Order: sequence, then structure tokens, then C-alpha cells
Amino acid sequence: MSDLRPIRIAALVDGLTAAHLDGLLLTGLSNIRYLTGFSGSSALLVVTPRDVVLITDFRYQTQVVTEVGNLARVSIEGASLWTGLWQQLAAMPTVKVLGFETAHVQHRDFQRLVEAGGRWQWRPTVDLVETLRERKDGSEIARIQEAAGVATRALERTLPQLRVGMTELAVAGVLEKALRDEGSEGFPFPSIVASGPRAALPHARSSTRALEQGDFLLMDFGAEVGGYCSDVTRTVVMGKASGDQREVYETVRSANERAAQGVRAGMTGRDADAIARHYIERAGFGDLFGHSLGHGIGLEVHEAPRLARTADGALPEGAVVTIEPGIYRPGWGGVRIEDDVVLGADGPHILTEFPRELMELG
Amino acid sequence: MSDLRPIRIAALVDGLTAAHLDGLLLTGLSNIRYLTGFSGSSALLVVTPRDVVLITDFRYQTQVVTEVGNLARVSIEGASLWTGLWQQLAAMPTVKVLGFETAHVQHRDFQRLVEAGGRWQWRPTVDLVETLRERKDGSEIARIQEAAGVATRALERTLPQLRVGMTELAVAGVLEKALRDEGSEGFPFPSIVASGPRAALPHARSSTRALEQGDFLLMDFGAEVGGYCSDVTRTVVMGKASGDQREVYETVRSANERAAQGVRAGMTGRDADAIARHYIERAGFGDLFGHSLGHGIGLEVHEAPRLARTADGALPEGAVVTIEPGIYRPGWGGVRIEDDVVLGADGPHILTEFPRELMELG
Repeated sequence: MSDLRPIRIAALVDGLTAAHLDGLLLTGLSNIRYLTGFSGSSALLVVTPRDVVLITDFRYQTQVVTEVGNLARVSIEGASLWTGLWQQLAAMPTVKVLGFETAHVQHRDFQRLVEAGGRWQWRPTVDLVETLRERKDGSEIARIQEAAGVATRALERTLPQLRVGMTELAVAGVLEKALRDEGSEGFPFPSIVASGPRAALPHARSSTRALEQGDFLLMDFGAEVGGYCSDVTRTVVMGKASGDQREVYETVRSANERAAQGVRAGMTGRDADAIARHYIERAGFGDLFGHSLGHGIGLEVHEAPRLARTADGALPEGAVVTIEPGIYRPGWGGVRIEDDVVLGADGPHILTEFPRELMELG
Repeated sequence: MSDLRPIRIAALVDGLTAAHLDGLLLTGLSNIRYLTGFSGSSALLVVTPRDVVLITDFRYQTQVVTEVGNLARVSIEGASLWTGLWQQLAAMPTVKVLGFETAHVQHRDFQRLVEAGGRWQWRPTVDLVETLRERKDGSEIARIQEAAGVATRALERTLPQLRVGMTELAVAGVLEKALRDEGSEGFPFPSIVASGPRAALPHARSSTRALEQGDFLLMDFGAEVGGYCSDVTRTVVMGKASGDQREVYETVRSANERAAQGVRAGMTGRDADAIARHYIERAGFGDLFGHSLGHGIGLEVHEAPRLARTADGALPEGAVVTIEPGIYRPGWGGVRIEDDVVLGADGPHILTEFPRELMELG
């Protein structure tokens, strides 16, 4: 595929010019990766209409050459990236007014800008790169699709290995090994394996609790391919489901299906959220669905846009979002079913093809 | 073990009084966990001489009660944690001047403080809680010791399963499954499995490269127990080591041994770093050891103190630090050997007991 990074940088430069900025300091690592391909954990990037300069440290001197190529001038700093920044900026005589990313600069570093960087004028900018990242191009969607395939194949390998008596941590171990064996570069977030009453905790991690007969077992996990994330949840029952379990499960399944089929580019995040929320409310479980329907995924596992009651913005074409309704009854358990969906011009396409029918294991 | 959280909060309140602050807003999640036990991913904490108030969201309403108990008043916010903050502060009439954590407040949120929170005076504070966290108490050391045991037992399970032809990702899968089976709650950082020439990248992650006969195989990974981290590196050879490999390995091994035995509370971080660095320099490899000797570990895998050329501070008694010298020859490979060491009153104690002799596998 052709290299889209120069096009992204050109789009950003257009934004800078419109905002009357001579340049932008980037500190958000996912934004830096999006623009340059650099995947290290320590970098500053300066973008101006004339220059693209990446500043990193010794640990990445080999990697940065491979990843960035000729796209940016690279400076390896022995002491502090900030010292390197002042030197680089001093060599750009036409640069006087710079933007910085208000969401990715700690107050400590903001103080550096206004003190050690006091010879330049600094203006906060909001989501300049995040907005570009909302609409995925073909190569990005292909990577998320791959990450979705890694995740669903890993789940397929995992389900036959699950037994009553295993701890949640052991289940996580089986699932994560399968993710690695399928080629996941990492874990986009700590795997959630929550069983029995713990399935009612929407942000449980994994514990030493052992699976019991009749438990709900909720698994929320993801894969990473080429830096891009997938994010999937399935909930199964260990043994036979009770009537209550089946009712809650089927309500979530229908809410997931309606939202995944009904979501559209151009719709507000609020209206997308409402598809699932109204269905769950009408079924009488509205109080037990306390989080929002979904979020964008890409280089980060949580990025724009949001599908939530407070999201007024229209969902852009090309966004990839999660659809993850849930019902959580404290002390009893819970169900969440989550898929990744790309918002195409012709409607939604589900990337995480994996059965959603209630599975009773063992 | 007795609950040390009230003592930690009392120590923090002493610091606030000394700094003429009526209270402190905490946004750093590890600091909040240290003070209250809350392990969720979304929280604000206010500490004053009279009140401890924790603000979190719906997702954690069950978990927060279990973890925090009566230590803090808990407020669950439906909309935004910041809205909750203004309401809580408005109910504290004696609180006018508040500190905030300069290292844990994004510029975006700093703007909230001075705008929406404009009726209070805000003062940046530096490392008030981080400084308390440097000296570990007995229960903290016990957890790090457990996390060290999980990591070394996982490595013991992993080594016999390694074969030429496996990918680095598959090795990571075996190692991470063993970490889970031994009880690790999570992965404190992305596992580094780097083989052959990739072992020369001090911050490689894991790739699809397959292990070859004669490769160095470097594994840098950690475990988490009760929220506390361990951080271990071992480097082995796939097959027979060459003379060059043996020379580099033995140099790193001696540097590790000298530093782990020679480091003392009261010494500066620079002097600790110098133990290993001077040894590697005298052996002729000084240019190839580009990072610092080590860092503190605890609730975070990188915390104070630092063992580095630029670290002037004295290492406190009770700190737990990594000792991780390395030699990296670009294009050829590299070796790092890393242990976790507690700086006791009577000298250093190594927590990561695992052989350091060169291992030739298969």
C-alpha cells in the first residue's frame, strides 16, 4: 500500500495554517505514530510547513531509522528531549508561534514551555490529529480487521479449554497465549476475565476466583496488529443457563444486534447509543446499563468518536467503533457483548465475526 | 498486616500543612491507590486535614466500597468527575488554597482548575506522594517479593519450552501464560522478547522473528501481585555461545553482581550507577551501555528513585530498585541482566533469585 503519512502531515499543516500557527509540538505518542510511524515510548515531534523533526533518545536510535525513514529529520538526545527541542526550534528562525496538544502535555511540561521555552509563543490546540484519526483509511481498516481476526481466532481456541475450577487468571493466561500464537503484538488493555458475581463489575480485571457451575463468564480483550487494536467481549455460561440468565443474555444480544445493524455514519453518537439503550430500557433493564454504548478504536483502544448519551457530534464515515451494550446486576452477574464495526458509506460492517448465540460450556 | 493507609494520609497531611495548603487534589492513579487502596482507572481524590473524598464513576461503584472501606468518603458521579469535584469542594468552606499534582494534570485539566475551579487558588506540587512511596514498608516489600517469585517461577517454566524456530511472539505467549498460571494480576509493561540482532534494541517489544541457532534471546518482563510490580531480565543463548557472546555476557554478569552487592541506601543514584558503568567501561564496552542502571519499582514499574548518571539524590532506605546493566552492539545483539533489590538498613537484598550463569539452551 502507498505511504499515507505525507498526506496526513499535509492535512495537519493545513490545519496549522488555518489556526495561524507557525508550527505544532506533538507530545501524544499515538499521534506521533500516526504521522511518522514511530512506535517508541519517548518522543517529541515538531511539524511546520517546512520541517518535520522527531526527537527521541538513545534506546530507539536503531528502531527510529527503520520506522520513520526519510519522513522526518531525527534527532537522538543523550540528556533530555526538551533540551533537544529548544535546540531544534532555535534553528527555525521563521517559527515564533507554536501550538501544543492540551490533552497530551502535563502541567509540569507546560511550565517548561512557558519558562525554558519562553522565547516562543505557545497556544493550546485541541484534537488536531485526533480528528484526522477518526476517519480510517483502507490500510488502517485492514489492520483493525486483522486484529479483530486475531482476537476472534484466539477466543475460538480458548473456549474448548475452559473448565469449572479454573481461576479467572488461568483463563486469561489461555486467552492471552492464544492471542500471542495468533500474532498479537501486545495487549491493548488489561484483559477482563470476570466470572459469577464479578461479571457485574463492568471494569473488573482478572482475579483468583475459580469458575463455578452456572457462572456467567465475561471475557473482554483485544489484539494489536501493526499498532492497531481490536476490542471484543463475549459472555458465556459455565453449564446450563438459568431462565434469568437467558433473559438478560437475550436482551443484550438483541441490543447489540440492533445497534450494530442500525449505526450509521452521519448519525450522532447519542442517537447510536439510544438504539441499544432504548431497547434495554423497554426490556426493563435500563438502570443496569450504566456505561455508554461504545467508542472509536484505532491506534488507541479508546479514541474518538464516542457513542454515548452526551455525544452530540456526527459519527464520521470511515470510523471504526465498538458496539458494547451490557446489563449488570450487582451481586448476581452481568452480560456484555461487544463487536467492532466500521461505518462505511453503504452502512456498517462488522469486523468481529464470532457467534453471539448463548453458549453453555461443558 | 495492619492497615497503613491512615498513616500514609497523615504523613501527606503533614506535608500539606508545611506547604501552607488547605488541601490537595490527587489525579495520579498510583498515588490514589497508595493512599486509599482504590485500583480503578478513573478517580479524583481530595485530601484535607479533615476530609478524604474519592470521586469515581458508575463502573466502580461496587469495587470502590470493597477496596476503600471507611477510609474515604466516596462519591459516584454520573456525568463528569470534575463536576463532582466542584460540588465536593463547595461543601468544604475552610478550603481555599489547594495543591495539584504538576506531574499528573494535563494542560486541558489545568485549564479546568483555573476556569471552572476559579473560586479556589491552585498551587502546583511536586512528588508529595511519590516521595512517601520511595520507602517501602514491610507489606509492600512482601508484595514485591511475591511478584518477584511469580516472575522467576514463570521463567523457570518457560525455559524448557524454548526451541529454535519459535517466534518471539510465541515465546512471549508461553512466558505470559506461565505468569498468569503463577498468579500475576497483569503485565506491568509490554513483555520484551528480543532475539538475535533484535537483542541490541534496548526497548524492543516482541516480533514475528523466529529464533535461530546461536541467537541471544533477551526476555524482560514482570509480574504484578496486590498491585505491586516486579521487573526481571535474563538473556540466554540458543545453542552454543561464541567467544564474543561469552565475553559480553560475562561482563554484564559481573557488572550486575557488583552493583547488586555494592548498592547501599544513602549512596547517590549516580554512585550506584557508576559501580556497573565503570566496570563495563574498563572492560572496553562503555559506549555500548547507553541507558541508566536502574529505577525504583512498586505500584509502578518505573518510579523513584533513579540509578543514573544524572541522579544526585541519596537512595532511601527501604527503596526497591532494579539493577539492570546491559551491553548492546547494533546489528549483532545484546545482553541485559536485571534483578530487583531492596535497600535494607543492613545492605541490599536481592528479591529475584534466579541463576545468572550463561545458559545455552537446547
